[in-house]
Amino acid sequence: MSYEVRSLNEECGVFGVWGHPDAARVTYFGLHSLQHRGQEGAGIVANHQGKLSGHRDLGLLAEVFSDERILDRLTGEAAIGHVRYATAGNGSVDNIQPFLFKFFDQQIALAHNGNLTNAKTLRKALETDGAIFHSNSDTEILMHLIRRSSQPVFMDRIKEALNQVKGGFAYLLITEDSMIAALDPNGFRPLSIGQMVNGAYVVASETCALEVIGASFIRDVKPGEVVIINDDGVQIEQYTDDVQPAICSMEFIYFARPDSNIAGVNVHRARKNMGRLLAQEAAIDADMVIGVPNSSLSAASGYAEASGIPYELGLVKNQYIARTFIQPTQELREQGVRMKLSAVRGVVAGKRVILVDDSIVRGTTIRRIVQLLKEAGAKEVHVRIGSPPLKYPCFYGIDIQTREELIAAQYSEAEICEKIEADSLAFLSENGLIEAIGLQFDAPYSGLCMAYFNGDYPTPLYDYEASYLASVE
Amino acid sequence: MSYEVRSLNEECGVFGVWGHPDAARVTYFGLHSLQHRGQEGAGIVANHQGKLSGHRDLGLLAEVFSDERILDRLTGEAAIGHVRYATAGNGSVDNIQPFLFKFFDQQIALAHNGNLTNAKTLRKALETDGAIFHSNSDTEILMHLIRRSSQPVFMDRIKEALNQVKGGFAYLLITEDSMIAALDPNGFRPLSIGQMVNGAYVVASETCALEVIGASFIRDVKPGEVVIINDDGVQIEQYTDDVQPAICSMEFIYFARPDSNIAGVNVHRARKNMGRLLAQEAAIDADMVIGVPNSSLSAASGYAEASGIPYELGLVKNQYIARTFIQPTQELREQGVRMKLSAVRGVVAGKRVILVDDSIVRGTTIRRIVQLLKEAGAKEVHVRIGSPPLKYPCFYGIDIQTREELIAAQYSEAEICEKIEADSLAFLSENGLIEAIGLQFDAPYSGLCMAYFNGDYPTPLYDYEASYLASVE
Amino acid sequence: MSYEVRSLNEECGVFGVWGHPDAARVTYFGLHSLQHRGQEGAGIVANHQGKLSGHRDLGLLAEVFSDERILDRLTGEAAIGHVRYATAGNGSVDNIQPFLFKFFDQQIALAHNGNLTNAKTLRKALETDGAIFHSNSDTEILMHLIRRSSQPVFMDRIKEALNQVKGGFAYLLITEDSMIAALDPNGFRPLSIGQMVNGAYVVASETCALEVIGASFIRDVKPGEVVIINDDGVQIEQYTDDVQPAICSMEFIYFARPDSNIAGVNVHRARKNMGRLLAQEAAIDADMVIGVPNSSLSAASGYAEASGIPYELGLVKNQYIARTFIQPTQELREQGVRMKLSAVRGVVAGKRVILVDDSIVRGTTIRRIVQLLKEAGAKEVHVRIGSPPLKYPCFYGIDIQTREELIAAQYSEAEICEKIEADSLAFLSENGLIEAIGLQFDAPYSGLCMAYFNGDYPTPLYDYEASYLASVE
Amino acid sequence: MSYEVRSLNEECGVFGVWGHPDAARVTYFGLHSLQHRGQEGAGIVANHQGKLSGHRDLGLLAEVFSDERILDRLTGEAAIGHVRYATAGNGSVDNIQPFLFKFFDQQIALAHNGNLTNAKTLRKALETDGAIFHSNSDTEILMHLIRRSSQPVFMDRIKEALNQVKGGFAYLLITEDSMIAALDPNGFRPLSIGQMVNGAYVVASETCALEVIGASFIRDVKPGEVVIINDDGVQIEQYTDDVQPAICSMEFIYFARPDSNIAGVNVHRARKNMGRLLAQEAAIDADMVIGVPNSSLSAASGYAEASGIPYELGLVKNQYIARTFIQPTQELREQGVRMKLSAVRGVVAGKRVILVDDSIVRGTTIRRIVQLLKEAGAKEVHVRIGSPPLKYPCFYGIDIQTREELIAAQYSEAEICEKIEADSLAFLSENGLIEAIGLQFDAPYSGLCMAYFNGDYPTPLYDYEASYLASVE
Repeated sequence: MSYEVRSLNEECGVFGVWGHPDAARVTYFGLHSLQHRGQEGAGIVANHQGKLSGHRDLGLLAEVFSDERILDRLTGEAAIGHVRYATAGNGSVDNIQPFLFKFFDQQIALAHNGNLTNAKTLRKALETDGAIFHSNSDTEILMHLIRRSSQPVFMDRIKEALNQVKGGFAYLLITEDSMIAALDPNGFRPLSIGQMVNGAYVVASETCALEVIGASFIRDVKPGEVVIINDDGVQIEQYTDDVQPAICSMEFIYFARPDSNIAGVNVHRARKNMGRLLAQEAAIDADMVIGVPNSSLSAASGYAEASGIPYELGLVKNQYIARTFIQPTQELREQGVRMKLSAVRGVVAGKRVILVDDSIVRGTTIRRIVQLLKEAGAKEVHVRIGSPPLKYPCFYGIDIQTREELIAAQYSEAEICEKIEADSLAFLSENGLIEAIGLQFDAPYSGLCMAYFNGDYPTPLYDYEASYLASVE
Repeated sequence: MSYEVRSLNEECGVFGVWGHPDAARVTYFGLHSLQHRGQEGAGIVANHQGKLSGHRDLGLLAEVFSDERILDRLTGEAAIGHVRYATAGNGSVDNIQPFLFKFFDQQIALAHNGNLTNAKTLRKALETDGAIFHSNSDTEILMHLIRRSSQPVFMDRIKEALNQVKGGFAYLLITEDSMIAALDPNGFRPLSIGQMVNGAYVVASETCALEVIGASFIRDVKPGEVVIINDDGVQIEQYTDDVQPAICSMEFIYFARPDSNIAGVNVHRARKNMGRLLAQEAAIDADMVIGVPNSSLSAASGYAEASGIPYELGLVKNQYIARTFIQPTQELREQGVRMKLSAVRGVVAGKRVILVDDSIVRGTTIRRIVQLLKEAGAKEVHVRIGSPPLKYPCFYGIDIQTREELIAAQYSEAEICEKIEADSLAFLSENGLIEAIGLQFDAPYSGLCMAYFNGDYPTPLYDYEASYLASVE
Repeated sequence: MSYEVRSLNEECGVFGVWGHPDAARVTYFGLHSLQHRGQEGAGIVANHQGKLSGHRDLGLLAEVFSDERILDRLTGEAAIGHVRYATAGNGSVDNIQPFLFKFFDQQIALAHNGNLTNAKTLRKALETDGAIFHSNSDTEILMHLIRRSSQPVFMDRIKEALNQVKGGFAYLLITEDSMIAALDPNGFRPLSIGQMVNGAYVVASETCALEVIGASFIRDVKPGEVVIINDDGVQIEQYTDDVQPAICSMEFIYFARPDSNIAGVNVHRARKNMGRLLAQEAAIDADMVIGVPNSSLSAASGYAEASGIPYELGLVKNQYIARTFIQPTQELREQGVRMKLSAVRGVVAGKRVILVDDSIVRGTTIRRIVQLLKEAGAKEVHVRIGSPPLKYPCFYGIDIQTREELIAAQYSEAEICEKIEADSLAFLSENGLIEAIGLQFDAPYSGLCMAYFNGDYPTPLYDYEASYLASVE
Repeated sequence: MSYEVRSLNEECGVFGVWGHPDAARVTYFGLHSLQHRGQEGAGIVANHQGKLSGHRDLGLLAEVFSDERILDRLTGEAAIGHVRYATAGNGSVDNIQPFLFKFFDQQIALAHNGNLTNAKTLRKALETDGAIFHSNSDTEILMHLIRRSSQPVFMDRIKEALNQVKGGFAYLLITEDSMIAALDPNGFRPLSIGQMVNGAYVVASETCALEVIGASFIRDVKPGEVVIINDDGVQIEQYTDDVQPAICSMEFIYFARPDSNIAGVNVHRARKNMGRLLAQEAAIDADMVIGVPNSSLSAASGYAEASGIPYELGLVKNQYIARTFIQPTQELREQGVRMKLSAVRGVVAGKRVILVDDSIVRGTTIRRIVQLLKEAGAKEVHVRIGSPPLKYPCFYGIDIQTREELIAAQYSEAEICEKIEADSLAFLSENGLIEAIGLQFDAPYSGLCMAYFNGDYPTPLYDYEASYLASVE
């Protein structure tokens, strides 16, 4: 029989707090600042004197917890939470995290941000041995490994399990007496520790979540580390020594919030630098620089500053975009209907425009924006991309899964330029990107993962090896 | 017995189309681009071969029409729609427009953007004469006046009614055979006419709604005009000659969308000019200019350009702000919890910041933003406001109703600066504002209404006269 | 232009209380026992120290008030409420009562059970004179008549208005200082007054609503009476002397609840008598008597008792019938799918069955039930109907509107028997019905309206005259 | 750490069909007739060419499938479904069945009606061995046992698992190629096989579900049988020979629908016989017999028939009882408020009433009904119960869990009579019950389970033994 696990890539956000009398509410506000990392669903599990209880559902955080009584019921002095990325069509609440498990001898909840490369193999082996899975998320695997470990001490069970899963992962667990965080040996995903004024410890996917609740930054979780937080404080251990930093460069390019710092680097600064270096690498004469709102505004302002060409607001983003939407008919589409973005005719008409965007995936969006600007009267549109061409899929948690959907994997720069109907097109170089971000690790690419650009994956691909090899032939 | 009509100020948006086979859907997309003008409720009435039917409800447009079948049922070749401004606590669907009236001899639907100054007087007179109102909105009044007019010809009834209502209004009506638009004698609110590729005529509160459906701009509706659109085309008449342009300057300052043009002036351009002139009027040395997202980004970039000081992204706006929200407890509020705006520590720490905002109403928001920046390490925060101090209430449709809530009506600039804990504070001058917008009408203030700044109301205040006089003593 | 007011027949229920600290909650429970009179929508308006506020919506009472906070907000010492009959397809909340009107000099709420015969004429005259209606219910008419009356005293305005409306009506109004009930000159619809233990006065469509809240019965409202209840007690006046009792016999036959008394006659008793007399008029030998649940169980038990034939439970009604339902496909319909009623095979198989039903409208339901019984093995099915054949429409509030839909208006008893595939068919005689109910009024038919059976309408038909005459030709 | 599995008793309903092109819709209608067996939640899993997909949620069936598109998406030629009993406070969708499992080598869905007596022991053993449970329902246990079985052939795995679970159970499973039903060795719960006109096979908890979809009855599933239905037809095997019929007598007394047959006995007939025998055992002179609607009407009519005392409708049940309800205040409760049942004053006033009910659990309901009748004027109320006193808990699926809640376990008949304020009280004898039902099995009590009456449990109690023994001391 044919069997297919649809690999759910999980760019998600996790947040946890230990030692606050209103832990679920703190978690709510922390998660709120991580909402950009996942809009499909959200959940919180609280620990009240060793008893766990939770709530999760499909929808934005504010929808899932729209009834204030839900949070009121989640009393507890510790909590973890999760926001889940929208992957079209798989909207079952069974996949919304944290997963809460109640055993006769233990209660554990588990949240996960990342993607395992050996999930299929592990799952098949576990099922063959009698395990029953209830979601099609990778996340459950760790729990089975922990519960089946023969180690007598619980932390040793966790370490044993962490050494069996491969790929990109940031785990956050809560038990009766501890909160536990762990990062994969490459540290693909960001994960930071902070502390609140009252002494409570906080773990979050991005530092913006620390800011929002007034917590101070302590330090990032490092590759291969497991962090145990309980009433005795924070204890950090290394569950493996086989580590090598390879931080996801897409976090800097478009995924993380501009006010977050990753590995000590401010994301807005990094993006502005991408724009600056892009201006040096791919200068052109024009009347104005405009960015695609909102993610490319930092890079665009960097480009403007470095080039001396004025930065303008040439595109307006409608802030009332609903997630379920009336679709225009074909005829209306042809007549107009730009619900998300509008070109400002009064700004761009008759002008030569440099359009800065953060990246190109399929090329369909940028093509539509170029058209928009031209219809609004722009004389020339020169596209400048703040990152190198995306040519390879990501297996560590970013939702780029096949080479077929990547326009830069199929076509040359000149061909892409023609397809998107731009007057010129340039990408930032790989070295430019590395320099712009400016990590200082003693590791390839200064500690960045550059695999989507050059296919140089920092780990074996396990279950994905065969399909990857087929795709690059 | 005491009787109080709570005057509902109505910054709203209207949109209508005549002559398109999918009129309700066109109206949906037009209204979608006007959503910033009102989020409390939305409605559409369609005309199918002379029969009117409609749908309206509380909520965002996309929520009200989330079930695609609703639009499918609103077949028709003409339609009008309305988005309504959120006025806290009065959320009854009875007030959501368009209002649809079915008489034994006529069907009419009516939508309204504005505020009448003699509503209370007219309503009392009408009720004394047996009229029954079903909403507490001003909008119904016009319909009673029309139906009670003794004029034999329908258009004369409308003109007679338009001459009885006073204040700020943009009306949009649809009958069995026509769509009718009318603007008050001062033209406080914007209203424009456009045409689609297929010849259909469109009326909209802002030109951005023309762009979104691919319609070309024909001309603005002028003060004192009534526009009749039907299968014979467009006919424009003057229902009064006692006109004097006094376009609401707050539309330019913060209310309209930056890609709209009002009286031929692009809103983004006008805002950028406000920033430029502010930089000249109130220069100061600093490390960076930042704007309050999103409405003040144009002015901030103008300030930066004119001053030569770099424009930076120092504040991040969370784009996932729900309308109903879990409120932080007092303790959490003190510890942090900035759900809407965050300061980018990596950008502002140790810097002297010029913070540009469009206006100050109560002063509470700007005070919180200054605090945010200082907590994120800003060394100095110099507040620059792209408009003059707001000192007087608006009676023509902007929701500023009492002097008590206006900080600039109570305190001097120096006092405000101290209250908001800024290092310096400056407002744009009245002349600066008039110059930045650059209207050319042969009228006071070049055709702008400046009443909120200087109390120079372009009309008598009727029902509001007494309370206004009491407030300024 | 063609104009059509779809006459909404209103078998509804009204309830009001004056002088109870929790008036809205009392009204909720009173209405709950009247839910059988209307399931489309419900509403309550409360009077708190002279200020009226209300809530109404589509749905069952328990749905409309499912959020307990709604009732909590409706504080007040007096209240009126309404449940509205489901008329397919016209589900607008605009038609849900009570209607609440706030004038500059007065607040009034209004609820109505009945149907006016001159509504169209009155409405057209009022609209011609400038009146604006907001619903397509008859109910609004009274309010326009009251507000336009030239009488200086409010009660005289009401009496003047009551003398202008014709047909069947039971009105319940509440103002700042009084609750007012009025019944039409024929007393078509039931309306009773009761008193609670604490002295509060209650008005209700049926006496079962008095029982449910523990109120004692005082007396019925009589034809042509208007009842004023306020802090001074109850005052009853006659607004017209042109009265003649003609109580709707369908209330006894199937509409009212069996535990209610109308004009002193218990409804269950009346139905049981109908069964008893039917057994005498139309005896037949059989093995068992079964009734159609639930409305015909009383009549069936009467038939069984009088005939000496055992009463059996041969039909089971599924108590979980949802109002919106998945429809079976054609194929499934043919294979079975009886969601509402099932025949008990173990009871009826091989037996001769007397099937008692209260009335036949279209004949489709009884035909399906006969089939059901035969498929379950019944050897013979003899249909006995506890009322005379329905041959004429009702214009006073029962939803039988055209003769076309009445099978007995089109076919003879023998033809109907054949169409419904019964082995025999008999109806109760008109005299039998009158005797079974046993009213004692000095009026035609002892005070019953028998018009649906014999076309003898107790009032002129006004707006319906023409269409009625056309139908009987 | 303390760990408590709240044992969820599961009086539920299951339905399945194999071989119908619209299997999910057939299942919907089948389940609809089983809604009385469970109102907390419902679900359906369909099999389309070997692929399973499902939908389940909290609420009534019609609510769970209110959007017709859900059923449309559940295409398939086979399906199983489940309705779940409402157990207060544990309303998580995780417990709603069928449970759907997707393994790398197999897809299975599982529904269950019953209660296991060794669930806690099995669950603890499985968890100790690494199993992870996702609900707190007993139902999951069977799936773990199946997947962990070492038998090579799938049907042998199922049989091995069935021999490990103890207590009362009716399982219904669906796999890629078969539908499988199984009954416990005592046959506590009913389960029947039928066939549709097109040849499709059907399995259902009660025969009323066969009637509703037009299927003919084939035979009951017998104790210890496992039924395999696939494209080759029906195959029935015995998974154990250690069987002894002990059909739950409460199914006959009040749980099953009157039109169902269990073990060939019609439920209405059985109830009527209970009434007849009760009349013989506990005769008394009175004016009328009334039953508590709806479950006791059969028994009441039997009592009336046998005694010759007239059967009357003395209690009316409000058919619009919502599941979430506004609660009356204490004061209102005292003044009346009988939302569910009303006494018919016009029937019972001044009369001596025999009140027939099916059973007494806590005694609170019958006490309230006696009061109701007395307040409505009944001179005497003689309570007659159609079953013996309930004295012992049920561990096989009926929600009677502790002796403490059973009034007959604490008090004598005389004491109960006094507590419920009746004029006399009598129960049907055990022999009377056995005779009334009339099973013919060669087993104790002719094949009935009488344990709730006499503590004679037909199986060991396993996990419940200790608490049971404590309770009877």
